[in-house]
Amino acid sequence: MHTILIIGTGKSSTFLIEYLANTAMEKNRKIILADQNIEHIYQKYKDDQGVLVKKIDLDNNESRRSLIQKADIVVSMLPAFLHPIIAKDCLSFSKHFFTASYESADLRKMADEIKEKNLLFLNECGLDPGLDHMSAMKIIHKEINDGNEILSFKSYTGGVLAPESEDNPWKYKFTWNPRNVVLAGQGVSRFIRNGQYKYVPYHMLFRRIENIHFENVGSFEGYPNRDSLSYRSIYGLKEVPTMLRGTLRRAGFCQSWDVFVQLGITDDSFEMNLPDHYSKRMFLNAFLPYHTENDVEIKLVELLPWVNDEILKKIEWLGLFSEEELPQKKGSPAAILQVILEEKWELKASDKDMIVMQHLFEIKTNQGIKSVISSLVCKGENQTKTAMAKTVGLPLAMAIDLFLEGKIEAKGLQLPITPEIYEPILDLLEKENIKFTESSTLKND
Amino acid sequence: MHTILIIGTGKSSTFLIEYLANTAMEKNRKIILADQNIEHIYQKYKDDQGVLVKKIDLDNNESRRSLIQKADIVVSMLPAFLHPIIAKDCLSFSKHFFTASYESADLRKMADEIKEKNLLFLNECGLDPGLDHMSAMKIIHKEINDGNEILSFKSYTGGVLAPESEDNPWKYKFTWNPRNVVLAGQGVSRFIRNGQYKYVPYHMLFRRIENIHFENVGSFEGYPNRDSLSYRSIYGLKEVPTMLRGTLRRAGFCQSWDVFVQLGITDDSFEMNLPDHYSKRMFLNAFLPYHTENDVEIKLVELLPWVNDEILKKIEWLGLFSEEELPQKKGSPAAILQVILEEKWELKASDKDMIVMQHLFEIKTNQGIKSVISSLVCKGENQTKTAMAKTVGLPLAMAIDLFLEGKIEAKGLQLPITPEIYEPILDLLEKENIKFTESSTLKND
Repeated sequence: MHTILIIGTGKSSTFLIEYLANTAMEKNRKIILADQNIEHIYQKYKDDQGVLVKKIDLDNNESRRSLIQKADIVVSMLPAFLHPIIAKDCLSFSKHFFTASYESADLRKMADEIKEKNLLFLNECGLDPGLDHMSAMKIIHKEINDGNEILSFKSYTGGVLAPESEDNPWKYKFTWNPRNVVLAGQGVSRFIRNGQYKYVPYHMLFRRIENIHFENVGSFEGYPNRDSLSYRSIYGLKEVPTMLRGTLRRAGFCQSWDVFVQLGITDDSFEMNLPDHYSKRMFLNAFLPYHTENDVEIKLVELLPWVNDEILKKIEWLGLFSEEELPQKKGSPAAILQVILEEKWELKASDKDMIVMQHLFEIKTNQGIKSVISSLVCKGENQTKTAMAKTVGLPLAMAIDLFLEGKIEAKGLQLPITPEIYEPILDLLEKENIKFTESSTLKND
Repeated sequence: MHTILIIGTGKSSTFLIEYLANTAMEKNRKIILADQNIEHIYQKYKDDQGVLVKKIDLDNNESRRSLIQKADIVVSMLPAFLHPIIAKDCLSFSKHFFTASYESADLRKMADEIKEKNLLFLNECGLDPGLDHMSAMKIIHKEINDGNEILSFKSYTGGVLAPESEDNPWKYKFTWNPRNVVLAGQGVSRFIRNGQYKYVPYHMLFRRIENIHFENVGSFEGYPNRDSLSYRSIYGLKEVPTMLRGTLRRAGFCQSWDVFVQLGITDDSFEMNLPDHYSKRMFLNAFLPYHTENDVEIKLVELLPWVNDEILKKIEWLGLFSEEELPQKKGSPAAILQVILEEKWELKASDKDMIVMQHLFEIKTNQGIKSVISSLVCKGENQTKTAMAKTVGLPLAMAIDLFLEGKIEAKGLQLPITPEIYEPILDLLEKENIKFTESSTLKND
């Protein structure tokens, strides 16, 4: 009998838990769900014999370790900075460890020991990172096996709204961690294009966008993610002239979001401590130059001359030109902006989110240059059964299931970039209707 | 007999050491000069009976502490991040502690214990911070004592070149720590203007400048420093409607420097690892958008349309359009830029630097609104006897001297903002020809 401990049971874990719980009895497995707040999940699983719900105090080493000791596999769905703590416990008690988050430097330091102990630590096994790696590697491996050469690989993913739920001027709502959305893109993004290294600072990022089109669901814009360069060696494409990983937003979003970036309102580096009765308008004004007479609206357009009526309407819709009281006075600009946005960008019960992913390849073949475009569109069901939770949770759940079934034999610190891992998962995802459509055109020189 | 231990004996300590060494014998004091590299300073002071030169290994707790134990007063001229280590030693051995650096949060945590042990820990006692506080507080205290109200206080300081040494297109050379110059202004600058809080992100900073004029040495531009808000309570001006502290550069500098800021070349957050034979031109191109045909020069002007011929000439003068090999391939963009600049912006033996400081007050008096402008111009002698070293070192040296003479009786964690400290120091500085000229105009309403 195998025990799977899942730490973190929020919205993002819904599909992960369901997938594993569904077959727990039949496969003779026990699932322990651990969280700091267990009310909600306890109600849902109290009558499920294969599932045990446990309160966990993460700061209490004893409480945490005694739970980890009981498991064979530990899945961390906690915020990324907590993974190394759980991973260290897993290492000392010889437990396998799975996440949907980026493999961190802390994890890499443990790589040798993970291997020595014959454990599997699998990271980046969700959506992005995760499904993007798997679907891309399938194409890359096939092309290389066919003797072809990848000249250009660009890959974009976005968590957006299904078109039928785009009922606000921004055509955007929070379908995932709001803090990550507000801070997205900070730092310097780096990629390579036609053999030239390219570095884009945050304040230029939302202008360096590419139009990405999907049949049926329309146009999106993609901006480069933080570090595309390191994926060249991970993907086995060390010499590839063009490589870029990016994020998708609905067309028109980036330029409007750039207003906040340009003004410094997404900064998270210092604490504001604003007076009582400070209004949203005063908050916006604090990031605009002083002028004895000019209104906030005029100063905004003078500072950022590309701000048009459509963008002004979006800012206005958020209440930022109004005298409404600021809902939070203390915190970084980004934290205060987040509270303003959370009031406006909340998913309604019936809202559907959508995942869009597109890989764009230029491939040198004997017949000429081949363009391959592989696209995924996946819509959510409602406010809780989101496409985001589904595409993050299912690949991870499937990897765990396959590992316990002995169908994944890899050990050590791993990413889902080998056929042994990605092939069965991509097959299983197709059965859940998460599948890519591929188009290919050949240019004869 | 008192012993003064000065840790850090680089260029910036020249005047500090000389001032204290000159009277050491006569005042029955011993000066210990400690550094990791002592060759240079040993040659200079080997025959001076009041001065002892000691090698110190900062990482070696024993070596460091045994030196500190021998002293009555410890002066840290080390990089700011090392101060807390020295300060902790001083606290445990009950030694007084002096620096020219900003009072840090770590120091503030020690405040109670410093007071209990009846020690003086005096920080911000150099130029900026230091002389700026002292000269401003003298005016502020006088005006408040006269029953007047400060409506606006702006204070700018710059370490620049004397006009006669402005012999390159940038009219700038490194007269102080190059790394600090390259990173200057990063983060969000915050101040208050006419009762309105203002926050300026780094990528907007070098456009939000004010023209500041000095008789005889001409026009400069000032941009706001990181945190002006916290100085309201320190200066006793909690309700002041306008308060801004800033940095001065020669007129025209900020817009040209902004090219590097806009492109992201001053970023210090990640490591580049560029190939062999990478040229300066390729380095610049890496921060510009990709284009199949356009040259670097054209792309630069297309991305930043305000870049004019004068700015292009400055970039060219640095070699950034040339195929010259990049002098360093590994490091953050800021670190690589620093190496390029150090080759070009090095002070020649005969070059003179200059300190410019200006306080601008608007003061409500019974007679109307009074404008007070108080300015300091101080020129260096040559490459080593810089105005920067002089204006940083002398206030600190004088504070130490006055404290040992019993003329400063303050204890605890202090800044030089009380008359007991600033009055005698400002008087002594006048004798060294470091003096302010004040002009005042009255507007009757």
